[in-house]
Amino acid sequence: MKKTVVLVSGGIDSATCCAFAKRDGFEIYAMSFSYGQRHSVELDAAKRVAAYFKAADHKIVTIDLRAFGGSSLTSSEMTVPKDRDIHSENDIPNTYVPARNTIFMSFALGWAEVIGSNDLYIGVNAVDYSGYPDCRPEYIDAYSKMANLATKAGVEGGRFTIHTPLLRLTKAEIIRAGISMQTDYSITHSCYDPSPDGKACGKCDSCVLRHKGFVDAGVADPTVYMRD
Amino acid sequence: MKKTVVLVSGGIDSATCCAFAKRDGFEIYAMSFSYGQRHSVELDAAKRVAAYFKAADHKIVTIDLRAFGGSSLTSSEMTVPKDRDIHSENDIPNTYVPARNTIFMSFALGWAEVIGSNDLYIGVNAVDYSGYPDCRPEYIDAYSKMANLATKAGVEGGRFTIHTPLLRLTKAEIIRAGISMQTDYSITHSCYDPSPDGKACGKCDSCVLRHKGFVDAGVADPTVYMRD
Repeated sequence: MKKTVVLVSGGIDSATCCAFAKRDGFEIYAMSFSYGQRHSVELDAAKRVAAYFKAADHKIVTIDLRAFGGSSLTSSEMTVPKDRDIHSENDIPNTYVPARNTIFMSFALGWAEVIGSNDLYIGVNAVDYSGYPDCRPEYIDAYSKMANLATKAGVEGGRFTIHTPLLRLTKAEIIRAGISMQTDYSITHSCYDPSPDGKACGKCDSCVLRHKGFVDAGVADPTVYMRD
Repeated sequence: MKKTVVLVSGGIDSATCCAFAKRDGFEIYAMSFSYGQRHSVELDAAKRVAAYFKAADHKIVTIDLRAFGGSSLTSSEMTVPKDRDIHSENDIPNTYVPARNTIFMSFALGWAEVIGSNDLYIGVNAVDYSGYPDCRPEYIDAYSKMANLATKAGVEGGRFTIHTPLLRLTKAEIIRAGISMQTDYSITHSCYDPSPDGKACGKCDSCVLRHKGFVDAGVADPTVYMRD
């Protein structure tokens, strides 16, 4: 069975990526990061997602992105924005973590080389997203070209493929695709700023996009919110 | 004063990179990694190098590359090759760490964005090297293109530059250049497999290249070897 690394944050997008990877016939090697994020309950969701999709292995790599700061997701001195009008604001919000996807994919690239995989699934999205530079198609294309030169496989003429099945889907389309592939979204977590017991705030970009996705897809939202 | 991140391993190449960065008028932000390497005494050398070149800051980022293994530099179950004939063997040796430069530069990219720098110095070399895929000029070019799309600066039309002043120099030329810029190589460390008290083995690729560099440059080798 061919192997692929899947970056699993524990949210809707990465769970749906797992469903796509399975549909495409891959054995899943899940990779998650403990990076000083304030929403570390997402790692529990990542474990549930990896188990749900019967991942052959699940590595949680500890890296300290707080070492250089610069994001409200990793700094206790910055506040996660709430009730932002995502689609009318062009600014990159402070939840952006500098170079995060670049760092995550670099670890995935290293692990893929070790397990003999030429594939990586990542749930980046250029439609219903928060304006992060490292979610754009042209960025993923450039990363792929670099990855093909970075490793032994590159030297030996191999071909490393970054799969982005969600790139051009709306959140509602992602949810409908996932449900058609038996994804259980009740085990996922999206909120950037959850309560200590893991309830979602309902107001950060990630909660707003998630809830709107369920509404637009015509699917009941299984999320437990603080207001509930 | 313009800022640059410099990747500092504590060896000859990264020390010389610091000298070039200073000559080019940059304030140095040194970045090193504790990545499970067996030659962790190199971090002491990195601290000496950062201090010698009066770095404005020096971050040592802890990441666990042993999580996925695959290299004799990070695995206790693999042996560092000795007395290899570097220039007649085309194989990539087992000291290659999968995706290492990709991972290191990705952290540097994130830190550069936070401190407002558009520059990175890295001591990769395509002449006297060990055949690592992530030291090749075409790899660095591809990484630069990706980096320019990965960050806020990329979105805003900024220009991130990866400086590789050593790329086409022999080890002897690197040493001569460094000495002309007052680099003190006695504070550096190169050996992949040093004794517990930090003496160099004299037989790994890194020791062989280092010693030959001093001989070819006509400069006394300040290294303390185990045989001494």
